[in-house]
Amino acid sequence: MPASITIALDAMGGDFGAAVVVPGAAIALERRPDVRFLLYGDENVIAPLLAKHPALRAASEIRHTDVFVRMDDKPSQALRAGRYKSSMWQAIEAVKNGEARAAVSAGNTGALMAMAMFCLKTMAPVDRPAIAGIWPTLRGESIVLDIGATIGADARQLVNLAVMGAALARAVFDIEQPTVGLLNVGVEEIKGNEAVKEAGRILRESASEQFAYHGFVEGDDLGKGTVDVVVTEGFAGNIALKAAEGTARQVSAYLRSAIERSLMARIGYLFARGAFRALREKLDPRRSNGGIFLGLNGIVIKSHGGTDAFGFAAAVELAYDMSRFGLIDRIRDSVTQTRPIAAPALSESDGIV
Amino acid sequence: MPASITIALDAMGGDFGAAVVVPGAAIALERRPDVRFLLYGDENVIAPLLAKHPALRAASEIRHTDVFVRMDDKPSQALRAGRYKSSMWQAIEAVKNGEARAAVSAGNTGALMAMAMFCLKTMAPVDRPAIAGIWPTLRGESIVLDIGATIGADARQLVNLAVMGAALARAVFDIEQPTVGLLNVGVEEIKGNEAVKEAGRILRESASEQFAYHGFVEGDDLGKGTVDVVVTEGFAGNIALKAAEGTARQVSAYLRSAIERSLMARIGYLFARGAFRALREKLDPRRSNGGIFLGLNGIVIKSHGGTDAFGFAAAVELAYDMSRFGLIDRIRDSVTQTRPIAAPALSESDGIV
Repeated sequence: MPASITIALDAMGGDFGAAVVVPGAAIALERRPDVRFLLYGDENVIAPLLAKHPALRAASEIRHTDVFVRMDDKPSQALRAGRYKSSMWQAIEAVKNGEARAAVSAGNTGALMAMAMFCLKTMAPVDRPAIAGIWPTLRGESIVLDIGATIGADARQLVNLAVMGAALARAVFDIEQPTVGLLNVGVEEIKGNEAVKEAGRILRESASEQFAYHGFVEGDDLGKGTVDVVVTEGFAGNIALKAAEGTARQVSAYLRSAIERSLMARIGYLFARGAFRALREKLDPRRSNGGIFLGLNGIVIKSHGGTDAFGFAAAVELAYDMSRFGLIDRIRDSVTQTRPIAAPALSESDGIV
Repeated sequence: MPASITIALDAMGGDFGAAVVVPGAAIALERRPDVRFLLYGDENVIAPLLAKHPALRAASEIRHTDVFVRMDDKPSQALRAGRYKSSMWQAIEAVKNGEARAAVSAGNTGALMAMAMFCLKTMAPVDRPAIAGIWPTLRGESIVLDIGATIGADARQLVNLAVMGAALARAVFDIEQPTVGLLNVGVEEIKGNEAVKEAGRILRESASEQFAYHGFVEGDDLGKGTVDVVVTEGFAGNIALKAAEGTARQVSAYLRSAIERSLMARIGYLFARGAFRALREKLDPRRSNGGIFLGLNGIVIKSHGGTDAFGFAAAVELAYDMSRFGLIDRIRDSVTQTRPIAAPALSESDGIV
């Protein structure tokens, strides 16, 4: 049996804190029996919840903290008040120390990214981390990045996102040479803003063994799965992600209301309920919960703040699988081989969302 | 009976040209019997198609042109080769001359916008037109702009989009004081890029009788219909639109495949087929075909280039309805009353997509 894999959890993060984190960890433990947890947060809150899950209690250790980051703290506030002593910081620090292989938090994205950068540092020569999501498509799954770590990106930063995203796709999907597309408003070379056009030119001209550059893709290529990796800056990426999630909910609501409107349709629903259950599962956003922080010297996964135990478990399993695959080493190898363009210096505009 | 309304059609625009434009116009004529058409393009192509639709032929006049704009022409090429003499230009010019109340083209967006700006000029004090779309939501419909006229926008331009979008909503939805939201990556005031934050500050502080500023909205608020008007710059707006369209198709494909997988589900489908038909109609992107060019001294509607006759008819009906409502005058009144922020000068970055 392989050695167990330890994951550090920020037990106080998210809209519901430990009330979701603890049962979420319990679900993950059922599916990944060799996972072990370090639970950071208020022992008085965590311990009673853990008492309801004996198997999880046996696989977990509580690390008490008095401080935790609020969902509306600005990154600078969170760093000032929570560095070294908050549950979020200590979960990340456990990765740095080697006590844990990955950290998971449902806490505030900006604070988590700021702390992760401060504690783990970016992987040279990457100057700016990204958040990657796994996007369900008609052909399977794609990696989409950046979905909200930073706003705006110049050509060099877009190229680095392509390198990191391809490295992630190689590791997670086990593809030798993933295809990479740049998200744009059209597929012709004259379309888009200067950063996207220039990044397209660089990627076209610089052949890489690590990935195959496909060209520009448009918003509807996301769901089609036209490429393995879709690269965009965080503003458009975050809006695309939420527009897609919203549309999926909208279509489901239309379907429900169409069926409720007639008796015949309701009878039809009874026959087809297995199919509707399959559809509901397919569309369940909890299944693809978990934003992957890329470009850091360690694995940090951001769970959606409003998810439930089932969704949090998906984020934990993602952290587990990435640890098991040795993702950080594989990304470092890829990134080093592709030699992304080094940064001149961090610019003022590199704000964290 | 009110006087008829004349619409100028670029009969050569789109992936299929007159083969879609002519039957599309015939469908629109059935639903709007007092519409009249000026059909611009190659008479040798248009006349035989028109011969199959006697009612349309009686309501139309062909205006022969030798030149037409290609789908992949750059705006500058299109202007050089097609100004004054192309079917696209002449359809727009008919609006300027007062021969037609609106122009519709399925041709290339960049060329159409360039020609429309050159021929009709922007409505003072608007310096930069936008493309607005009508977005189906769970609550009805919203206006979303810009969906691809221009890339990038500063705070002043975003505020002007809010003013124009609100004017359109007042005219089309007949709402006294539409709600307006700024599309962003979060709803907190600290979120987003500088342009969005600054535009939010301006809109919060400058009360208007023309609309009620709601605050920031996120990608999933589009489908919810949280506000009547969603404002964003064209890059993110275009990507959000196509991501949503792609997701709707993706969910439909999942549903179809879930139902085909079992006999019981297929039996259920037979009972519920009325509901499925209603859903299909609801999701049909042809129904909301038609991008509205806003901020010009005249009505120009861009039809999707790949649509069929049914979709083109929807764009024609949109042009008709906007003419019937006296939209341009109503928008001019709104825009003048709200006094949008005048432009210093057109900047280099104001490129057309």
